Amino acid sequence: MPGCLITLTTDFGVRDPFVGVMKGVILAICPDARLVDLTHEIAPHDVRGAQLALESAVGFFPPGTIHLAVVDPGVGSARRPLALTSGGQGFVGPDNGLFTFALADPGWTAVTLEAPRYRLPEVSRTFHGRDVFAPAAAHWARGVPLADLGPPARDLVLEPLPAASREGLGLLGEVLAADRFGNLITSITAAQLAGARRVEVEVAGQLLGALRASYVDGERDRAAPILGSQGRLEIFVREGDARALLGAGPGTPVRVALG
Amino acid sequence: MPGCLITLTTDFGVRDPFVGVMKGVILAICPDARLVDLTHEIAPHDVRGAQLALESAVGFFPPGTIHLAVVDPGVGSARRPLALTSGGQGFVGPDNGLFTFALADPGWTAVTLEAPRYRLPEVSRTFHGRDVFAPAAAHWARGVPLADLGPPARDLVLEPLPAASREGLGLLGEVLAADRFGNLITSITAAQLAGARRVEVEVAGQLLGALRASYVDGERDRAAPILGSQGRLEIFVREGDARALLGAGPGTPVRVALG
Amino acid sequence: MPGCLITLTTDFGVRDPFVGVMKGVILAICPDARLVDLTHEIAPHDVRGAQLALESAVGFFPPGTIHLAVVDPGVGSARRPLALTSGGQGFVGPDNGLFTFALADPGWTAVTLEAPRYRLPEVSRTFHGRDVFAPAAAHWARGVPLADLGPPARDLVLEPLPAASREGLGLLGEVLAADRFGNLITSITAAQLAGARRVEVEVAGQLLGALRASYVDGERDRAAPILGSQGRLEIFVREGDARALLGAGPGTPVRVALG
Repeated sequence: MPGCLITLTTDFGVRDPFVGVMKGVILAICPDARLVDLTHEIAPHDVRGAQLALESAVGFFPPGTIHLAVVDPGVGSARRPLALTSGGQGFVGPDNGLFTFALADPGWTAVTLEAPRYRLPEVSRTFHGRDVFAPAAAHWARGVPLADLGPPARDLVLEPLPAASREGLGLLGEVLAADRFGNLITSITAAQLAGARRVEVEVAGQLLGALRASYVDGERDRAAPILGSQGRLEIFVREGDARALLGAGPGTPVRVALG
Repeated sequence: MPGCLITLTTDFGVRDPFVGVMKGVILAICPDARLVDLTHEIAPHDVRGAQLALESAVGFFPPGTIHLAVVDPGVGSARRPLALTSGGQGFVGPDNGLFTFALADPGWTAVTLEAPRYRLPEVSRTFHGRDVFAPAAAHWARGVPLADLGPPARDLVLEPLPAASREGLGLLGEVLAADRFGNLITSITAAQLAGARRVEVEVAGQLLGALRASYVDGERDRAAPILGSQGRLEIFVREGDARALLGAGPGTPVRVALG
Repeated sequence: MPGCLITLTTDFGVRDPFVGVMKGVILAICPDARLVDLTHEIAPHDVRGAQLALESAVGFFPPGTIHLAVVDPGVGSARRPLALTSGGQGFVGPDNGLFTFALADPGWTAVTLEAPRYRLPEVSRTFHGRDVFAPAAAHWARGVPLADLGPPARDLVLEPLPAASREGLGLLGEVLAADRFGNLITSITAAQLAGARRVEVEVAGQLLGALRASYVDGERDRAAPILGSQGRLEIFVREGDARALLGAGPGTPVRVALG
């Protein structure tokens, strides 16, 4: 997976220098690496939020990109540090389910990051992002073969994102997250709605009316459903905040009647 | 406008991976592009705020820089997607007034981003930053001529920033924005104050005293006027917050008596 | 100190385009510079916070990196603008104590940034980050010798970080800062605890129990001490917020009994 583009996803925030330090470690090993921040504002320890962000983003990066993701409540425990390749892209981070979405490709291969020469000389038990994951991503980007980073890893921890289920003629899903605009991202995918002539969405006791084609087709004080840019059903308010208007958030049930 | 430097200005925030995704799209098309974030914390849909940020920044970038700006409440509507060149710099974003300040140069040229080969293969109606604007900026940076991106665009939407007007012997302006330190940026420009021997500023019912040359010439609990680094009259409190102290904000009138 | 890697540390935040403007200035002078944000969320005018961030980060960057740091309440006053080299790394910023930690290396050399040709043509009195510091860092990175940037500077302003002192058989220190997770960073260093068989920590009236080896060895509702990744004693709560739980913050005394 030699490639020079590395994305970074963490729950470290941007107030402390943790992310900058990881970039220093990477550039000391692989001076030509190009670094792109996906987000560092994942809620602390929110493995699912990180997975949602990665799932919506990786397909837009060129083949060979390495996605370094550190949301790691188990740092310092026995949880394995991983590098894996899947669908032409690379992933580096803890074995806690972060990359479950990428394992849908049956051709994935993973290793446990154990080779001492591809870690920092001193490995703390509190900051593997700096001491284990950043060095591994940088060496891999520089051309070190995946197999040299450590022994094969199997039986990875799986944390599938909640999926909407059939309920009668419709679907029962839930809100997974809200974005910065207050749009609600749901567990109902575009694929699950494909072919339906009529889509009726109910959330927080409200029927939302017809699926809109764009945000400007919505109203300014009423929530409406739309197929969002992440390939999921979203609930929005035109130039407003659906999360606030509906009092909904992660876990709120979303029902869809299909016709 | 071939150039390798692309700035990004959005109201997307940094919590969601939207900006990272745009960068992935750009680097997949133009791997050598250098990317600089101007800000992603424009208030949602605040076209004026984005224009203020761009106006204060673009002059410090080298000729040939492309400024990609996506504050786009009309995404998915009939509003045109634009690329334009003005004053030796490039601009890419929606036709909603974002670039009005750049049209003061009568030599500007603009096109509507319609050429399908310079968009992503699938164009959503909710995320043109990713599907239309980022690809256009990247192809332009890579050397595709402006004219190939689409047909000429004229009669662009104009949203001039509020300008201070003469009032008797003085000026009547307003607060346009507050920066992170609580300094108030006004609509009164340095050019409008040039040559005055005496400048008396009144805001929120308070006379502020003489124009200061630097922040350390102010007092710690009293607001004072200064010519800020953006070429505008600013109101500040030394190591304090003028917005909070004066209870002022965007729209608050600012009167200047000139002598 | 020719090098292409420049880090940036400021209290400018990321809402206003100040940091982006500095990057534009740098890239106009030194197009090959690689830029890494350390943090821009230093509290306004918090010189100590900036020093803590830098101290924990610079050792992870390759030799020749230039660290540009602008937390500058005295901008426009007589405080000197500096460039200095120490321990194989470069530093550029105001002479207000920001770089005190780097002066422990007796081999440091510093200059005052006075040479007009390495500043912007117009120097404001409110934004030296843009007009003085960014150009100096960029010219230095491009290969201009340190001595050409200005005359030698001696007797730099010193603002040492608070150090823990001996108290009986133990140590008396204090909380210096809290990180994004609510972990408390103290003035007690790993070196001061080296060799101790038993370490008993008291903070905010609570005895914290044994030093933990990793975050997962802590409890979910009780604060515990740990040697953090920055080489300092830290107080944490497993997947929780020690700052909130203990009601502690910068200045809170921390006592350590050693055995």
